[in-house]
Parts: sequence; structure tokens; C-alpha cells
Amino acid sequence: MRASELLLAYVREIQELQSAVSLAYWDQRTCMPPRGDTARAAVIGRLERLAFERLISPELGVLLANADARAETDADRALVRYWQREHERKRAVPPDFYQQLVTTCVQAESVWERARHDSDFALFAPHLANVVDAVRRLADYLGYQDSPYDALLEEYEPGMTVARLRELLPPVVATSTSLVRHHGQRESQANPSLDRGPYDLEAQRRLSREVLAAIGYDFSSGRLDDSTHPFTIAMSPGDVRITNRYNADDVFSGLLGALHEGGHALYDQGLPEEFNWTGLDSAASFGIHESQARLWENQVGRSPHFWHYLQPLLERHLPRLASVGPEVLAAEAARVTPSLIRTEADEVTYNLHIALRFELELGLIEGRTRVTDLPQLWQEGMQRYLGVVPRSDREGVLQDVHWAGGMFGYFPSYMLGNLYAAQLFAAVQQAHPHMWGAISQGDFSSVLGWLRAHIHRRGGALLPEELMGEATGHSLSPEPFQRYLSERYGPN
Amino acid sequence: MRASELLLAYVREIQELQSAVSLAYWDQRTCMPPRGDTARAAVIGRLERLAFERLISPELGVLLANADARAETDADRALVRYWQREHERKRAVPPDFYQQLVTTCVQAESVWERARHDSDFALFAPHLANVVDAVRRLADYLGYQDSPYDALLEEYEPGMTVARLRELLPPVVATSTSLVRHHGQRESQANPSLDRGPYDLEAQRRLSREVLAAIGYDFSSGRLDDSTHPFTIAMSPGDVRITNRYNADDVFSGLLGALHEGGHALYDQGLPEEFNWTGLDSAASFGIHESQARLWENQVGRSPHFWHYLQPLLERHLPRLASVGPEVLAAEAARVTPSLIRTEADEVTYNLHIALRFELELGLIEGRTRVTDLPQLWQEGMQRYLGVVPRSDREGVLQDVHWAGGMFGYFPSYMLGNLYAAQLFAAVQQAHPHMWGAISQGDFSSVLGWLRAHIHRRGGALLPEELMGEATGHSLSPEPFQRYLSERYGPN
Repeated sequence: MRASELLLAYVREIQELQSAVSLAYWDQRTCMPPRGDTARAAVIGRLERLAFERLISPELGVLLANADARAETDADRALVRYWQREHERKRAVPPDFYQQLVTTCVQAESVWERARHDSDFALFAPHLANVVDAVRRLADYLGYQDSPYDALLEEYEPGMTVARLRELLPPVVATSTSLVRHHGQRESQANPSLDRGPYDLEAQRRLSREVLAAIGYDFSSGRLDDSTHPFTIAMSPGDVRITNRYNADDVFSGLLGALHEGGHALYDQGLPEEFNWTGLDSAASFGIHESQARLWENQVGRSPHFWHYLQPLLERHLPRLASVGPEVLAAEAARVTPSLIRTEADEVTYNLHIALRFELELGLIEGRTRVTDLPQLWQEGMQRYLGVVPRSDREGVLQDVHWAGGMFGYFPSYMLGNLYAAQLFAAVQQAHPHMWGAISQGDFSSVLGWLRAHIHRRGGALLPEELMGEATGHSLSPEPFQRYLSERYGPN
Repeated sequence: MRASELLLAYVREIQELQSAVSLAYWDQRTCMPPRGDTARAAVIGRLERLAFERLISPELGVLLANADARAETDADRALVRYWQREHERKRAVPPDFYQQLVTTCVQAESVWERARHDSDFALFAPHLANVVDAVRRLADYLGYQDSPYDALLEEYEPGMTVARLRELLPPVVATSTSLVRHHGQRESQANPSLDRGPYDLEAQRRLSREVLAAIGYDFSSGRLDDSTHPFTIAMSPGDVRITNRYNADDVFSGLLGALHEGGHALYDQGLPEEFNWTGLDSAASFGIHESQARLWENQVGRSPHFWHYLQPLLERHLPRLASVGPEVLAAEAARVTPSLIRTEADEVTYNLHIALRFELELGLIEGRTRVTDLPQLWQEGMQRYLGVVPRSDREGVLQDVHWAGGMFGYFPSYMLGNLYAAQLFAAVQQAHPHMWGAISQGDFSSVLGWLRAHIHRRGGALLPEELMGEATGHSLSPEPFQRYLSERYGPN
């Protein structure tokens, strides 16, 4: 066997274990009965540890060295680079510590769920403190130059640093803040002619299914289920599942959520078959993955053209909503109002939520901020960035699960996703200047075709910066996003 | 750590892997999108191989020897015996051969599915021949005294042999044959006053849910889904899932199917907590497991008292069916008619199906029968045992998946389940002579309580013969079953 084939045979086991983990997570959030939780946590912990042990094993180091020395093709080199990066980064992390970290997080997630329900930060605080301690130790194991936060960022966005985020964020915050001010002066109230529901959930589900099929989601390689928190997860390229939630009083939330998750799923379903089980059947980064979701949700889904396409579907599934016509609905989908909950935020204010979280979690990881100060800091930050303040921690510092799950360094991916999406979509528009007409008719093929060719088919073979360079001719810049926001939301 | 604790820590990993396999199987048959199948087969193969390697590893041998030498309690001894048996039996089987066997069977199952659909035995035959060859090799690895079939039986029914089956089967066949003759002379046609449907599937599902809850199935530790072939599977004692199917034209099939699967599930949900992750959180055998299903389906579910309990539920969920009254419905549930499909067979003819399969598979495994002769032998056997002959292989030799899956030696468990059920139920009736009145009122606690105390709480700690001795005072005998059949179905 060739050295790269020996490497492939070895890493296949890691990925088969990870596929089993993905199924276990999906099932936990969609199907698992309540009393299955303890055993499930143990099973996930076991599978993750087995995969982790294989990833950091010296055996993989030897296979990588051999495959590196004998690499013949670009594919060989991409394969070696991908696994070398994973292996090198993690091999200083002791498996016992890693398993303990996973367990600490699984426990903290359970407590978070109760704490959020009861808006009881004090209940959650000691668990969060444990998680922060463990994650800071993880950063030490992983290693870094400037900030321990850099070590964590690398997991979600290879090549990203605190220093680079400090360049990218301020112009984005400035644009958002100025647009919020503009919209605050305009009348940004909901259109009173809009019937607020309640709307049948089953009709909303049918609508989401139809829209997902229209943008290209393949139901023979996936399925759509309900969950408390929408997510997309891939067991394999032939099994990419979406979950979504529906709100009787807010059709926009479920529909845009379906587009968001659909964007994630199109990426996973579009990975090239020759990457199966290589590790390269993955995203370039969490930020790039998010960009695919945001592009379909925002650039496409909040455009007037999309709502023109949607009109006959709405007449069939939600006739009361359809009666006001596509212009009113598109305007509602693009309404700007500072609000408390990130996942429901509009495009303009969304990154302000991220700016606050980045500020807070950087303080935690760099040891400048104490967990017990978070509720107070949250209130102050919301006032400063958004001018609105939650009445309870449930709507404030407890709203997101990420910190409980130890996912420090993840939140910037959301902001990066918005930036990538704008830059990519500008390239799509340049390549297909007349696509909006087709979109109004429900033909999304120019958007999907461009993304398939420039993003999806590359899988995890390129780093985000390489991918952006290849796809758009430029490295990541906040300007396309600023331009996009100003064009859609600015004074005209 | 004590030697038994070291053993427990080791075997826990095997069981966590098996829990992941159970989830993967459940998902494959209920949720998985069609194009997920290739990756899923690989994931299951991988997890099974990892578990198998751990089971046969010399490390487990050493842990077992130490735990055996230092066993202090009955629990220690039961634990050692359980794993020693598993380890000793399998350790001569090479992992590569085992993985190949699993793959051969997964492939044969896929082909069987198509072959059955098209009633094309020729398509299936070469794959079945491969499976038979592999299973015969497996028997050689496992070892046996008299027949290679004994080695396979041991997997499903510890202690059972061909010789013992040759004692148990003939009296059962004789009783069934004589009762079939009796019913053939009587009018065994369906009652013409019965409305044959179609009946709403959703109403049937609701009815099944309500009946499952009534007999004691805990939905917080389980769930009920649809599948093509009903089954019950446990991921852990807190997560025991039932699947069922419903037929618009035959309410009895879905309802008795729910009771059957419910019987399996009550066993798994009733395993004592202190057995969690020990391996003893399992059934004494497949036959004992089947007995729990058959007892609820037949002894309880086909009794007139059960249909009295059911009457108000039917009035609510299926009023058209309810209108004929419980006597007619109970008589219909206990109607005897020789038929082609085992899973739909009545209690009297059921074991005749098993007798045929036992005869055929014994011939295959002992090398006397060729795969290509099976369709012909099936026709002859059906004529001989049941007096009815299928028009197609789809309704004949292709009807069951077991052979494709390599499960030779499994079919006798169905017959043994019927025998165990009758013997156990006789003991239940002796302990609770007045229970039928309670059952008519929907109170099943005396049945469940007895089974919990005498069967479920023992888990896999006893061999079937030990369990039957402890629970009924006798080893397994065909007589209670013959008596039960004659009382319910004989001339009165």
C-alpha cells in the first residue's frame, strides 16, 4: 500500500467514531427519551476519547511522516497537511484531561439548561468557573504566542488571532452602530397590516420543506426534524440532517432558520465524493461554514426577490400572511431593531452581540474577568453596544449554551461568517449579474452553482484565507460587509 | 481497586460501544435517509469490531482470572461467569474473520431486501450461500460436540442443543397439528359482522400508546416509532425503544404487535439498576426475551379479559371496530387459520413455522441441504406442516431476514419463547388466581409484578434453565404450553 493509503486507513477509524458521535448528538437533541441522558453522556465521552487517543497517537505521527515524505499528488499533500495540523495541535493534550474536559462540559450543559430555565446564574456560576479553568488549561496544552485565546480560536478558525479580530471588529461595529442610529430615527415598528398569527406549525414545516428542496437540499441524503435549538449535523456526506424550530407567532423565525440551516447543509451535502472518509470532507472553518448559512438566510432570504418567489408558496401554506404581499413581507424580514437575543437579531445588530461576547470571553480566558462579574458586565455591555438591557439573566448572560459547552473562541465565527458571506456574495453577484430575476422565479442555481464550485468542492483542503483568496481574489476584509449593510439598510 | 472493579471498568467500554451500535441500528431502521446506508454499514462494522477485539483480548482473560480468584460476593461471581462465558466462547474467532462475517451479512441483507421485493430467490441464493459458508466456519471456530448447529444455538439459548430440541419439538408439533385439524373442521372464518376497515393509522398509534402505558411501559425511558419490521432495542436501561407497524385493514396486527414489543421492552426496562453497564443488564437468553413478548401478546392480549379492558379505549379510538363488542373481538384475536407468514401466524400454527425453519437450517448448517434446494424444500415443508403453499418465494422462503443476517440458530428461540411463556404464565396464574378480574379493569400489575420479581430483576445473571427452575420450580417442559393451547383452542 502507498503511504497515503496507510494513512487513510488509519484516519478512517477516527472518522467512523466521529460519525457515531454525530449520530449520538443528533439523537440526544431530537429523539432520546429523558432518562437516556446519563448513559448517552458516557457513550459520547467514550467514543470521543477513543477518537482522540487515535488522533494524538505516535502511530499517526509515523504514518504522517511517511506519507509526507512520499506525497506525490496535491491530494496527498492536502491530506497530510490536514491531519498533521490536527495531530500536532492536540498531541500535547493528555487524554485523561481531555475526557475530564468533555465530562465537565457535559455536566455544565445540563446545569446551564436548568439555570437558564430558572434564570438562576448563581446555580450555573461554579460550573462555568470549572469550565473556564479547564479551557484555560487546554489553551496552555495547545500552546500560543500572544494570548491563550489564540489557541482556542485556532480550533474554530485556523489562522485567526486576537490581534486580527481587533482589526476586523471596530469598523463592523462602527457601521452597525451608525445604521442602528439611522433606523432608530426612522419608524422601525412592525407594519400594522401584518397578521401576527398564530400560524399553524405544520403549515410552517411544509413551507420550510418546500423552500429547502427549492434551494437544492437533497432529502434523500438528509431529513428535517424539530429541536429546541436548530442545528445541522452530518453523519456522512450522504446523511446531513437539519433541525429547526417554529414559532406560531413569528413565521419569519422558522423560515429564515430553515434557510440558515439549509445553507449549512448544502455545504456538507456538496463536499466532493472523493473526499469521503479522508477528513477533507469537512469545512474550511466554522466561520466559512457559518458564511454558507448566513448567505442563504440573509443575502438571499431577506431580499425582496426571495419574497417574490415565496409569494405563491405562502398563498398555499399561509394565505393569511400572504395577503399583505411580498413588499411588506420583505420589509418585515429586513426590519432593524436592537434586541436581547442574538439568534433572533437582525443583520445590522447581530455583530454587536458578537462584539460583546468576544470582549467578555477574552477577559475570562486571559484571566482579567471573573465569572461572578459576568451578569453585571453583560448589562453594561448590552447598554453600550445595543442600548437595550435584559430584565433577567435568562434573556441575558444565560441565553447561549456555548460557554457551558467550553466553546470559547467560537462566537467570533458568527461575525466572521457574516463577513465571509458578504465577500462571497459580492463575487457571486459579479459572476451572475442577472441572477435576481431567476431567484424571483425560484431558480437558485446560480448561487448554489457558484458556491459548489468555489467553496463546497474544496472541503477542508484549504485554510480559510487560502479559500477566500482563491474564491474572491482577496483576503478577508470587512468592507464588502460594510458595503452590503449600507446598501440594504443605509439611507438611500 | 478490587479485581471485580477492574473487570467492570474494562467491560464497560465494550458495552458503551454496543450501546452506540444499538443506536446506529435503530436509526438505520427508523430515521436514516436512504443515501446514508454505505457510511452507516462502515460505522457499525467498525464499532462491532472494536467491541469484539476487546471481548477476545488476552487482557480480559487476565482480568477475569484475577476477578475469579478474588470473587467475594454472588454478584462478583455472576459477573465473572457472564464475561468468562462470552470471552471463552469467542476468543478462537479471528477478528478479521468476524469483521468479514459482519460485512457479508450486511451485504446479504441488502440483497435480500431487493430479492424479497422482486420475489427473486436466484438473486439472493449466492449471497445466502456465502453467509452459510461463513456461519459454518464460525461454528467451527466456536467449537461443538455433536452438531455445528449446537455452537450457533449457544449464542441465542445457552445450554440448548439439537438433541434437546428434538425432544421438545415433536409434542408441540403434535398438539398444534391436532388443534389445526379441530379448527379446520369448525368454522374458522372471520366473523362477518366485523368491520374490516380501513382504520385510521393515527388512531391505531394512539391506541397502541395507551395500551403500552397501561401495561407499564415507561415512555420517559423509551419511545414508540414506526418501522417496516417491528422491533425493540435498548441503548441503555433508561432508553428502551419500541417500533411497530400498523395496517389499515387489520387492527389486530398493530395492536398485538405493540403488546409483543411492549413485552420485550418491559423486560429491558425492568432490569435492576445495580446491573447497569455490568453486562448482566441483559436477558437470560433470546428465548426468555421472546417469552416476555409472547406472554403479553398471547396469554394476555388474546384473552377475552383483555378485550373487556380494551372496549372503552376502542370506543374512543376506533368506534366502528368497538361496535361488535369484546366477545367477537376476542374470538377474532384467537382465530386459528394456517397461513403463509410466520409473523402473522396465530398461536396454534406459529410453532409449525418454526419446525420447518429448524429442519431447513439444521440441514444447511450440517451440510446436508443446498441453498438452491430451499424453495422446493420450503414448498414441501409448508404443505406437510401447515397444508398451505405460497404462490411466490416472497411469501415463502424469502419472507424472513434472519438467514441473510447470519442468524442461524435463532428461530428455535421463537418456539422456546412460546414454551417459556406458557410455563411462566401458569406460575403467574397460580400466584394470582384472581388476576383476570383486575385485567378486565386494565390493572396488569399482578402480571408485571410477578415478571419483575422472578424474571426481570435477574437480568443475565442466570442461565435460562436456572432461571426457569427458580421461577417455576421446574425445568423447561412442553406440557404447560400444550395444556395452555388445548384449554384456549381445544374442543370444550
